[in-house]
This record gives sequence, C-alpha cells and structure tokens, in this order.
Amino acid sequence: MKATFMYGAGDVRVETVADPVIRQPTDAIVRAVRACVCGSDLHPYHSLHASDTGRPMGHELIGVVEEIGADVRTVKPGDFVVVPFAFQDNTCVFCREGFQTSCVHGGWYGSPEVGGLQAELARVPQADGSLVVVPGLTPDTASEELLASLLTLSDVYLTGYHAAYMGEVQPGKTVTVIGDGAVGLSAVLAARQLGAERIILMGRHASRTDLGVAFGATDVVAERGADGVARVLELTNGEGSHIVLEAVGHMPAYEQAYGIVRPGGIISRVGVPQYEEAPIGFGSLFGKNARLAGGPAPVRAYLEPAIQQVLDGVIDPGRVFDRTVGIDDVPAGYAAMDAREALKVMVSF
Amino acid sequence: MKATFMYGAGDVRVETVADPVIRQPTDAIVRAVRACVCGSDLHPYHSLHASDTGRPMGHELIGVVEEIGADVRTVKPGDFVVVPFAFQDNTCVFCREGFQTSCVHGGWYGSPEVGGLQAELARVPQADGSLVVVPGLTPDTASEELLASLLTLSDVYLTGYHAAYMGEVQPGKTVTVIGDGAVGLSAVLAARQLGAERIILMGRHASRTDLGVAFGATDVVAERGADGVARVLELTNGEGSHIVLEAVGHMPAYEQAYGIVRPGGIISRVGVPQYEEAPIGFGSLFGKNARLAGGPAPVRAYLEPAIQQVLDGVIDPGRVFDRTVGIDDVPAGYAAMDAREALKVMVSF
Repeated sequence: MKATFMYGAGDVRVETVADPVIRQPTDAIVRAVRACVCGSDLHPYHSLHASDTGRPMGHELIGVVEEIGADVRTVKPGDFVVVPFAFQDNTCVFCREGFQTSCVHGGWYGSPEVGGLQAELARVPQADGSLVVVPGLTPDTASEELLASLLTLSDVYLTGYHAAYMGEVQPGKTVTVIGDGAVGLSAVLAARQLGAERIILMGRHASRTDLGVAFGATDVVAERGADGVARVLELTNGEGSHIVLEAVGHMPAYEQAYGIVRPGGIISRVGVPQYEEAPIGFGSLFGKNARLAGGPAPVRAYLEPAIQQVLDGVIDPGRVFDRTVGIDDVPAGYAAMDAREALKVMVSF
Repeated sequence: MKATFMYGAGDVRVETVADPVIRQPTDAIVRAVRACVCGSDLHPYHSLHASDTGRPMGHELIGVVEEIGADVRTVKPGDFVVVPFAFQDNTCVFCREGFQTSCVHGGWYGSPEVGGLQAELARVPQADGSLVVVPGLTPDTASEELLASLLTLSDVYLTGYHAAYMGEVQPGKTVTVIGDGAVGLSAVLAARQLGAERIILMGRHASRTDLGVAFGATDVVAERGADGVARVLELTNGEGSHIVLEAVGHMPAYEQAYGIVRPGGIISRVGVPQYEEAPIGFGSLFGKNARLAGGPAPVRAYLEPAIQQVLDGVIDPGRVFDRTVGIDDVPAGYAAMDAREALKVMVSF
C-alpha cells in the first residue's frame, strides 16, 4: 500500500510499504476512503529533525472495514466507519469518565508499531472501542459533502466541539475563539451548537473568517496581541469574554486568552501547546479566578450524536476542506497548508 | 485606636493611630470583636522590604457596627457582622456572577487609604455589599466556639470552601488536599460538606493532620514531592485524584497537584501563588485534560448559608484557632505562626 512518512522538517514522502496486518485479536484493518492533513501535522513539518527513518503520518480517517481480529464484535468487514484520531478500549475507568484520550489501553497513531492514517490501509487497535459505524450509508451512497463532514468527526470538528464543551459554553454566554484555522472555525460551529449568544472570532484571514461567520461568529477581530485584547474588551463592555476557546497552541494565543477572559471565566485550549511553562499566577489566571481547561479531544465520547447531526444536516463541518488531493500528492497538500494556500486538505482514495 | 503595621520582613508593630472615619456615604465603621492572622500575612513577613512607612495589616474580622455612612441601608449601629476579607458592592456584573473579589467597585484591605483589620476599628467601604449580619446573636451572647467559627467565615473557612466549590467536589469523588495549614484543613471540612467520598490530606504535622481527620480526611499522606505523588497514586489504584485542592501557593505544591490529578480532573488553587509561570503544557495539564481553577475566594457569595451552618452547629471551622492574643501581642502571634508553634492565631479585643 501507499502511505505517508515524514523524514524531517518539510520532507514528506509517500512510499509503498507492506500492507498492515492484524496483530492483536482486537485489531481491525480499515481501507481508507478519505483522510486529511491536520494543523498539528505542521508542527513536525516545521521542526522535525532529519532522520533516515520516516515517521508515519496522519490520524484522521473514514473508511471501510476490511478485516477484523478474532475478538472484534461491534464492526464487521464492509462497515463504513469513522476512525477517531486516538484509539481506546472505551471501557476503562477514564473512558467511562469521558476522557478516552487517556484510555489505559489506548494510544496514538504515527508510531512505527501502529502506523499513520494518511495511508491506503490502516491497522486500528482496540477496534471495538474505537470504530463507530456510520448507520445506513456507504461511501458510494454518500455525497461529497457528507463524506467531508463525516471526516471532520475523526478529529477537527470534534476537537473544536471539545473546546466548547470543556469551556462550558451555554446559552447567554459570550465566547471568543482564538485562531481561524480549521479547529478554530470548528469551535465557532460547536459554540453555536451549544447555544452561545455571541461568538467573537479572532483571525486575520478574511476567507477563513468569512467561513467563521457562516458557522455562526457574530464578530470578527483581526487585531492580535494587546490590540486584539483591547478590541475584545471594547466589544464586551470592558468585561471580557465568559469563555475563550484557544485553537492555536502558541504562547501569544495563550497570552491573548488570559487577557480577554473575564473574571470567573474559562479558557479552553485545544491547540496543542508548543510550550510547557506559561503564566498562571495572580496577574494572569489566579487574581480573577479564571479557569483553564482542555486537552486532546476524546472524540469517541462525542461521536455518535455528531454523526447523527451530520446525517441530519444539522451541521456541515466539512466546509473546512478547501482542497482535495490523491495519496501521491499528500506532500503538496502539506506545502499548501503550510503556505496557508489551503485551510485544510482532504486526501481522497 | 491600636492597629497593626508591618515595616519589613519580621517587623510587625502595634501602634496607636487616629480612629478611622467615614469617608464615603457607603462606608461603615466597625469595632473589632475578633480578628486573626492569615497564612498569607506570612508572605510579606518573609519578604517585605524594610520601609519607614508601615503597611496596615489584617483582613479578617467580626465586629459590631459603630457608625454608618448616609447611604448605608442594610446594617445599622449595634449590628454584629462578619467582614469579608475583600469589600464589594455585591451588585456589579461580576458580583452577580459570583466572583465578588473581582467587583468593579471592590478592593482589598491593607492599603493606606482603606487600612487593615488587625485593628480596634475598621473603615469598611461598600458596607451594604460587604457586611453580613449574624442573625439573633451578639458578641456577648455568643460562645467562644461560635465566635471562632464565625471569624473563619471572614476568610479561612470560606477560602477552603471556595477551593472545594471551584473544584466541583461532589459525592463519589476522591479529593486530595495539599497543605495542612488552616486553609487546607478548612478545605477538608468543606470537601466533606460537599459530599466527597474520600479525602486524602497531604501534610506532615501530626497535630494538624489530626484535626484534618476530625474534619473528615479519610487518609493522611506525610510524604512530599515525588514520594507524595507516588503514595497518592497508590492510594487511588494508580488513577489519581478527581480533585486536588492546593492550599499552599508554592511551586512544589503545584507540581504535586498536577502529578496526582487524574485525567479530566480539576486542580483548584486557593494558596496565593508565589510564582507567575508554571507548567501547563502537554506533560502537566494538557495531555490528560486536567483543569485548573481557583483564585481569591468570593467569600460574600457563600456567607449567609455558612453563617447559618455555624449557628446550627453543622460545621465548627473555628477549631483551626489554637492560640488567642490581645492586640498588643499581635507581633508575637505572627512569630508563633511563622515558627509553626501556632496553626492560626486569633486576636481578641
């Protein structure tokens, strides 16, 4: 099969490798229908040290079950499934508490053992706990729009949803979303779903913020840093935002977040932090009782109702895709996202 | 009147100064019945630069209203009141949202303008929003035990309560309290009030942790640092604590907190952070979706029901006091708390 590997910063290659095989009785093999490139894939694209060993890439996928291990009960060959970006047994204590990305038997794609999902075939560990069947649909009967939206449930939309959920978005609240990437725009759509009254989107790219407005943003703030903070405070009568959804992961975005969150408010982060230490003392969070939430989205926790919302046409998160490539052109997809020529790139098989 | 001032680290003096007077029509003058020394008073006791100008000290008080400004409506001379450690109008947008320590017309005691509360008389700004009358009781009819418990509602018990409340303590949860000072022990009592199933108290002073057990701690962990983290993980089946109440404020306590909080759990801080930057990235909070909450307690939000609980004998938080001094001996009270000879020192007038 063909699969995607990164050998260093900017060095993405599609190579022909052996097909994955069932290793554990709880595994399934899934044939890709659509995959995509994630904003978080750009972090190693900027910083990965060169190596002779390629890192398997990709963690977002919808596809058809090709083969199952002896212990798999909830999916069968031929099922059309969404593959969450992390795998989990969905039965352990942390899964039951709704934090499946901390599953004691779970893990991440992209290791030499598990492989990546920007590939024609994927080995999915813990298939019963991870794969969710799209009911009443096959890849052939689904429209392009439906495929795109279902693909976002593997990661990007439900990561935005996780931000909004952990931020405790509810009717009557003012929400500010930092970042006009695909996760930020997804967070806007999710905040609207959860009833936010006002959604301020901080972003500088009009083509992106336009989609944010279509998703439900009521205000757009193009300024950044201190100017951006001042503008959000101005828009909120000097009070700040009840909830800030931080969908970038760099320090300036976090600094903006604690600048605009109001006393007692919540900063919910889903941009993977590119820092470890940051201000949380009296002058940033503590003094105004601001709270901090967020982390890797437990997509599995939100998947069934989200699939139904997509099938019912309630949400159309697939609009974040603005380019589609074949597997051979995945490296060009990375380059287009890195150059901001594309918001999010889909891979069609 | 006599009042307490700090002139530098370790230099606490009681001096005779002019009585405070009504400055604003919303002020009240309160005559002290009981005040006390706070753990947070020990921070400047360790680090305040020497100065010719003394800093007015103290922010915890119960007393009797002596005089009111023209606009004060809810208290009158002779009322026996609890004075929250911050003042507020209790009507602004942040007060209405339950974060009175961020009141737009509020502030802190201990400035040259407002004065401190380790004093025979105090000017209380925003009296209507700040003072709460103890119903059906006078200082003369109240027992020593009742006076002590009412005094804790000015700060220490309700700061512990705020930790537990913001930590979302509820039945079935495992709570770990870091710190066996008066705030930590108060947090134990509050966590028990909110129904915590298991309360692990981290502290090394047997006389203090014994009171913690009396307040409801089910386990005591004397180890600190990595050993303390390992012990709490061992006690929680390797899973960690749903909620961690951090009642110290120093970095090692915060490091313990993120070491023992379980995935999706909440760290709630009420120890005033003696740091600004701290780990919050993938390896500390983000990776396991741990949340961070806490800040200065909006005592006013919790005061009426807490007064009733004290009057009804449901809680006895006044047990944290183990020494009483007169106003002239306040400096000795600081020294005793600093030397850990006393857990918390009450000032009787």
